[in-house]
Amino acid sequence: MRVAPDDASSSARYGEVRHVSEFLCEPLATEDYVVQSMPDASPIKWHLAHTSWFFEAFVLGRALPDYHPFHPRFHYLFNSYYLTVGQPYSRPERGLLSRPTVDEVYRYRRYVDERMLELQSRPDGTGLAEIAPIIELGLHHEQQHQELMLTDLKHHFAVNPLYPIYRPRPSQSRPATVAPLRWVPFRSGVYWIGHTGADFAFDNECPRHRVFLNDFELSSRLVTNGEYRAFIEDEGYQRPELWLSEGWSIAQAQRWEAPLYWQKEDGKWWAMTLSGRREVEDAEPVCHVSYFEADAYARWAGARLPTEAEWEVASEGVPIDGNLLESGIYHPAPLQDDTGGISQMFGDVWEWTSSAYLPYPGYRPWEGSLGEYNGKFMCNQFVLRGGSCATPATHIRKTYRNFFPPAARWQFMGIRVARDA
Amino acid sequence: MRVAPDDASSSARYGEVRHVSEFLCEPLATEDYVVQSMPDASPIKWHLAHTSWFFEAFVLGRALPDYHPFHPRFHYLFNSYYLTVGQPYSRPERGLLSRPTVDEVYRYRRYVDERMLELQSRPDGTGLAEIAPIIELGLHHEQQHQELMLTDLKHHFAVNPLYPIYRPRPSQSRPATVAPLRWVPFRSGVYWIGHTGADFAFDNECPRHRVFLNDFELSSRLVTNGEYRAFIEDEGYQRPELWLSEGWSIAQAQRWEAPLYWQKEDGKWWAMTLSGRREVEDAEPVCHVSYFEADAYARWAGARLPTEAEWEVASEGVPIDGNLLESGIYHPAPLQDDTGGISQMFGDVWEWTSSAYLPYPGYRPWEGSLGEYNGKFMCNQFVLRGGSCATPATHIRKTYRNFFPPAARWQFMGIRVARDA
Amino acid sequence: MRVAPDDASSSARYGEVRHVSEFLCEPLATEDYVVQSMPDASPIKWHLAHTSWFFEAFVLGRALPDYHPFHPRFHYLFNSYYLTVGQPYSRPERGLLSRPTVDEVYRYRRYVDERMLELQSRPDGTGLAEIAPIIELGLHHEQQHQELMLTDLKHHFAVNPLYPIYRPRPSQSRPATVAPLRWVPFRSGVYWIGHTGADFAFDNECPRHRVFLNDFELSSRLVTNGEYRAFIEDEGYQRPELWLSEGWSIAQAQRWEAPLYWQKEDGKWWAMTLSGRREVEDAEPVCHVSYFEADAYARWAGARLPTEAEWEVASEGVPIDGNLLESGIYHPAPLQDDTGGISQMFGDVWEWTSSAYLPYPGYRPWEGSLGEYNGKFMCNQFVLRGGSCATPATHIRKTYRNFFPPAARWQFMGIRVARDA
Amino acid sequence: MRVAPDDASSSARYGEVRHVSEFLCEPLATEDYVVQSMPDASPIKWHLAHTSWFFEAFVLGRALPDYHPFHPRFHYLFNSYYLTVGQPYSRPERGLLSRPTVDEVYRYRRYVDERMLELQSRPDGTGLAEIAPIIELGLHHEQQHQELMLTDLKHHFAVNPLYPIYRPRPSQSRPATVAPLRWVPFRSGVYWIGHTGADFAFDNECPRHRVFLNDFELSSRLVTNGEYRAFIEDEGYQRPELWLSEGWSIAQAQRWEAPLYWQKEDGKWWAMTLSGRREVEDAEPVCHVSYFEADAYARWAGARLPTEAEWEVASEGVPIDGNLLESGIYHPAPLQDDTGGISQMFGDVWEWTSSAYLPYPGYRPWEGSLGEYNGKFMCNQFVLRGGSCATPATHIRKTYRNFFPPAARWQFMGIRVARDA
Repeated sequence: MRVAPDDASSSARYGEVRHVSEFLCEPLATEDYVVQSMPDASPIKWHLAHTSWFFEAFVLGRALPDYHPFHPRFHYLFNSYYLTVGQPYSRPERGLLSRPTVDEVYRYRRYVDERMLELQSRPDGTGLAEIAPIIELGLHHEQQHQELMLTDLKHHFAVNPLYPIYRPRPSQSRPATVAPLRWVPFRSGVYWIGHTGADFAFDNECPRHRVFLNDFELSSRLVTNGEYRAFIEDEGYQRPELWLSEGWSIAQAQRWEAPLYWQKEDGKWWAMTLSGRREVEDAEPVCHVSYFEADAYARWAGARLPTEAEWEVASEGVPIDGNLLESGIYHPAPLQDDTGGISQMFGDVWEWTSSAYLPYPGYRPWEGSLGEYNGKFMCNQFVLRGGSCATPATHIRKTYRNFFPPAARWQFMGIRVARDA
Repeated sequence: MRVAPDDASSSARYGEVRHVSEFLCEPLATEDYVVQSMPDASPIKWHLAHTSWFFEAFVLGRALPDYHPFHPRFHYLFNSYYLTVGQPYSRPERGLLSRPTVDEVYRYRRYVDERMLELQSRPDGTGLAEIAPIIELGLHHEQQHQELMLTDLKHHFAVNPLYPIYRPRPSQSRPATVAPLRWVPFRSGVYWIGHTGADFAFDNECPRHRVFLNDFELSSRLVTNGEYRAFIEDEGYQRPELWLSEGWSIAQAQRWEAPLYWQKEDGKWWAMTLSGRREVEDAEPVCHVSYFEADAYARWAGARLPTEAEWEVASEGVPIDGNLLESGIYHPAPLQDDTGGISQMFGDVWEWTSSAYLPYPGYRPWEGSLGEYNGKFMCNQFVLRGGSCATPATHIRKTYRNFFPPAARWQFMGIRVARDA
Repeated sequence: MRVAPDDASSSARYGEVRHVSEFLCEPLATEDYVVQSMPDASPIKWHLAHTSWFFEAFVLGRALPDYHPFHPRFHYLFNSYYLTVGQPYSRPERGLLSRPTVDEVYRYRRYVDERMLELQSRPDGTGLAEIAPIIELGLHHEQQHQELMLTDLKHHFAVNPLYPIYRPRPSQSRPATVAPLRWVPFRSGVYWIGHTGADFAFDNECPRHRVFLNDFELSSRLVTNGEYRAFIEDEGYQRPELWLSEGWSIAQAQRWEAPLYWQKEDGKWWAMTLSGRREVEDAEPVCHVSYFEADAYARWAGARLPTEAEWEVASEGVPIDGNLLESGIYHPAPLQDDTGGISQMFGDVWEWTSSAYLPYPGYRPWEGSLGEYNGKFMCNQFVLRGGSCATPATHIRKTYRNFFPPAARWQFMGIRVARDA
Repeated sequence: MRVAPDDASSSARYGEVRHVSEFLCEPLATEDYVVQSMPDASPIKWHLAHTSWFFEAFVLGRALPDYHPFHPRFHYLFNSYYLTVGQPYSRPERGLLSRPTVDEVYRYRRYVDERMLELQSRPDGTGLAEIAPIIELGLHHEQQHQELMLTDLKHHFAVNPLYPIYRPRPSQSRPATVAPLRWVPFRSGVYWIGHTGADFAFDNECPRHRVFLNDFELSSRLVTNGEYRAFIEDEGYQRPELWLSEGWSIAQAQRWEAPLYWQKEDGKWWAMTLSGRREVEDAEPVCHVSYFEADAYARWAGARLPTEAEWEVASEGVPIDGNLLESGIYHPAPLQDDTGGISQMFGDVWEWTSSAYLPYPGYRPWEGSLGEYNGKFMCNQFVLRGGSCATPATHIRKTYRNFFPPAARWQFMGIRVARDA
């Protein structure tokens, strides 16, 4: 998979990012693009079309006064949730649409790409400066959907009794055990968190502001499958005192007994991966757990989840590097060795924090319809940090705030624990 | 579309019927095979596979001791509802499966076809006589699914805002008006109804038995769109006294205001057809109405629906001919002219009767698992008679009992009225 | 409990019937009148008020031009389902209303009774003849609700972990075993069934008409708990081939393992009765089974359920006598001894027939709003015959057609089997 | 209503608090105690019994080794949600229980009271010191239920088309207009919030800890009905850009057009109150709005909701006084006059804050089963501050954290706005 160099021109980065979406689809059969396996997921062809619509709706339609949309109904079909630009097609019914076909969707992408590249090749002073930030946003938006394409596809393949393989597992050395978990200490005080500066960030990362933190400690690495199995074997899923009330109700109603995609057979745990179904490996970071499970695990372990401010403070000085999308593994990987600091902060799994997803003090959503991008979801969700094995490297940041409802499990979501010093 | 001649050998008929299923798919894109637009409908590729599984499960697996199934999981995936041969895959989730792909399903069909033709080419005295009735059943079963493929596809295309066209409408002369409805009288007495003889029939058509009928009259033709519009305009959908209680509740909850697929725009009624969306034509038989609507219409018209015994008695002497699947219209057609007798008894639309779908006196289901074919559905359904524009000509009979729950609308279902003499 | 003599004047019968409703409430605490334990059931005070509203709406309001209703909102609150007289208060929410209080409801009854008795004491020729049939209907209507009061109360008490006792069980001799089941034969032919003559009957029992019946046999008595236990022990609830498809789905979803109100504890079956919870007695007729269970039992027993026509033909010459409401047992009772004919035709339990509840040939609903009484429910229900231990003796008839959906279990419903001769 | 003096002995306070629960029931009919009008609400008799069970389960059963519970099943029936002491009876089915009767529940209270008073009259040194904090908790628990009794009763009466009156409205002078809203400023810095000291507080108010706040301003008084009407009239309920996404979905699905209990008739707004239905008065604080409505209103007004830390900092120096339960109004009251500071901080309505209900840094739940009291609900809820017209005066504190899901409306919930300085 090609990645744009740091000094890529705008149109080079545009081409690279758009290419990655299609690279991710190379292993797919036509039929694989169509299915929506649950209301929270979307068909792959919907992702491909929606990310193109984003450029149509927010760039081309605004920058080109005579822009002629590819198809008059696509504005309705591929708007996700921007109510201020029109009523979108029903989300849970995205999987009912065989048309437009996959071919048509790729033609749609070509159509948009041509006009986008044309636009970006304009000379300076022709309004490009005004729209460059929206193009940048559109590319980050597409990168978010790249992650969703993989997690939605995984869900879709996991409900199929044939357990299809997306891409075979790369051969690599895999440690059978990992270094013991250590506690890394941080001091109390007033800290600045949040984004500042000219680089791209979402509105929800701003403004940079002060928070007061007590002394705290974070675990040196992610919680592993082996550690999580100990929680299961200690009846973690049968003891209500470990759980939040709402989580307990959901776990009972949906009969949770292990992370999503785990199944017990003949006394062994098996899990679906994007490389097919295989036995659970103890050394890998645990994955596909809800906030409720992460929180119950932490309580069982005599710890707690970190706040997002603690996580961000701890990430200071840690290089943005790890098992991200570009590694081509598409699954969290065991820690190779303990280098003494704090590990696995980026990539592998999104780390649940105990922070509700709320506006930062002084938060202002973007102007206009793009104000719907983030702000309107600030309710009943929790913040996750650090990116996963499905997150593009050029997409993640230390201040990045991902967010999901506490019962969500289908993203690559895992656990780092914290404690008061 | 080729149709097998009457004197076709078993294997010729096998080939013809199997061919029709694939002929019906010729206009489809790969994506069109995948979608399930509601729990009652199935993906096209499921139909293609299930009808093949039927031969695997009930013929090949029994007649060939060393038969090796095409795929070990297909018995689970493509069993519909035969609980005595195993727990089937969840029906409402048939649309979640992108695999097997369409290509694999066609290969599955080839695999089954080869072995079926081989089996049928055996010399006499090698057990063929015992399985010939099951093969005959398997072909009628496939013909039932041919009709469902068209009605499921229509539902699927109708929920798509792009309104895809399955096959264009054939050009033909269409009368703008139809002959007035006449009442055709029949005399009271004890009648025999039900199937007898060596020809194929489903178990639910047997045994032939006696019923007592009062004097009655049937309408000379089907109720038209124009007549049904008069019911709508007379506030038929707003007057509870015309409706069965359960029908009224459903109509209110689902906001029924017209037959399924009708939409009012700018004061005109439009309807989805397999040839795309077009204006409703008054002369066509009304279609896609539930039992509740048929019953309410009849009450409004000062009439009632016929019983299935009345319908069968009236069909005596009427040739089995009409707008069936082979006409290639895929939509009910206006009556061309009134020839003085009773018209449109076969084809166009299945005619709702007021008879609950119950066992005939002395009914015995087929032996073994095939006993699940019909008998276990004898509850909360109503009988429909006469076949539709999606029914193959070699499939329909005068004694044929189709059955659907009273709220079903997505089949080609229409209305003939009756009254006491 | 007093019962009106046969020659009772209209107002004497009125007083007697109205009294029975209140007699049935004597053991109740105020709180017991308020609760609605499921949407199909109603609070006791609702029954008391609704039966009074019936006289207000269909007698007093019509016969007395200046009639002043007891309360302006009661027409809305206590209309059950007569849409042609107005939109009724939501049925599943009848249990949300603490007001009117029980005292107010009794005052409402007094108010209506005074005016009804005044009306009935008028001299002849003052319009009484026209309304006498409606009064008669109103009393039969109230008798239907007397049965419902007991079955609704039983459901309500059965969900309460304290298992309240309605009335203690009368002491009586109870045989531990019952006479063996015999088959009573009947001959084929054209029979007349349905009501005729001047006596009261519901519109759904008319008109009297001819049906053709094959030779058949009915069991000499009801199926007992002991016989039904054999079905349970033979895994009747685990074998799909015994069940209708819809019944199987419901039984699985609701985890049916025995009749409603049965619970297994320490290897014994216990059942809730109106005299409290006690061990199941083998000699009693089985009760609180759905149509699906009755049908599965019959199939397991190598038999079938009778049609309603067969039942009615078999009842010819059988006296209307048995364990009805007046016995004060409020539970089906074992057959005392086999007198050689057909037993337990009336009382004990309503007997499920295999006949869908449909209009008789030539059926005409009553004129006006009372036409909503029966006709609009002729869909997805089955006919039951013979009355139960909660049916008043002056209410039941040989032609009486009770009807419930096939999944209903909370009435006193049981099984008599039939077979082809 | 009597209120305990500040220096009341433990048993005097016990008696006073227990008395208030029964005082609140004086206007009720027996039937009013039984109904549960929605799953979130409970029957009044359940509240009366549950608060007594609390003393049985956590005080008497522990302090008296030979304590004999009043009834063996009440532990099951009246446990609310303490899973570590046993599986409770199903919450949404509390309204299905007519038994125990109201009389039995009062006898239950007498039984518990006698033993509690006996226990509290023991001499020092007999273990009283250990249980005194649990008794104190039990009384605060009962005070919480006193508020719920009123709000649950209001919901119950509001669904009844007869609109019952709980207690008539006290006559009092009511200003038609209120003083203009002013902005009261506060300075940025590190503040201490949370409870400390020996006085009673819930575990969720601890530990006292530091937070950093930017400059901010709070409105000098609550938002009024008049101001909220302007939001409605400006199409606040029709403009998605003002709403959180989840709130918009709920508002659409449930057709919200105004606060709960408001109905428009003949161009005027009417609202249900505990004194019956009356016209909405502009000068009263708006009430029965969800978090979603409060948040949308604030956005529309160019403001935001305060955080709980801001609210607590602002309450410094404000006397705990206002329209609380003891005022006997049972409804929020207009501000009498603007005294120049910040008004209506206590009583009238609980004020929605923008703070998710989460553990304070260093939070430790109480030991044992009482740890289930608060901590397990720290998810998907928002904090409300300040008490309401249904909160007892001896129950509220500046550090008190009430919490409800953002869609809840049936409590006395209202709005104070904030803004960045």
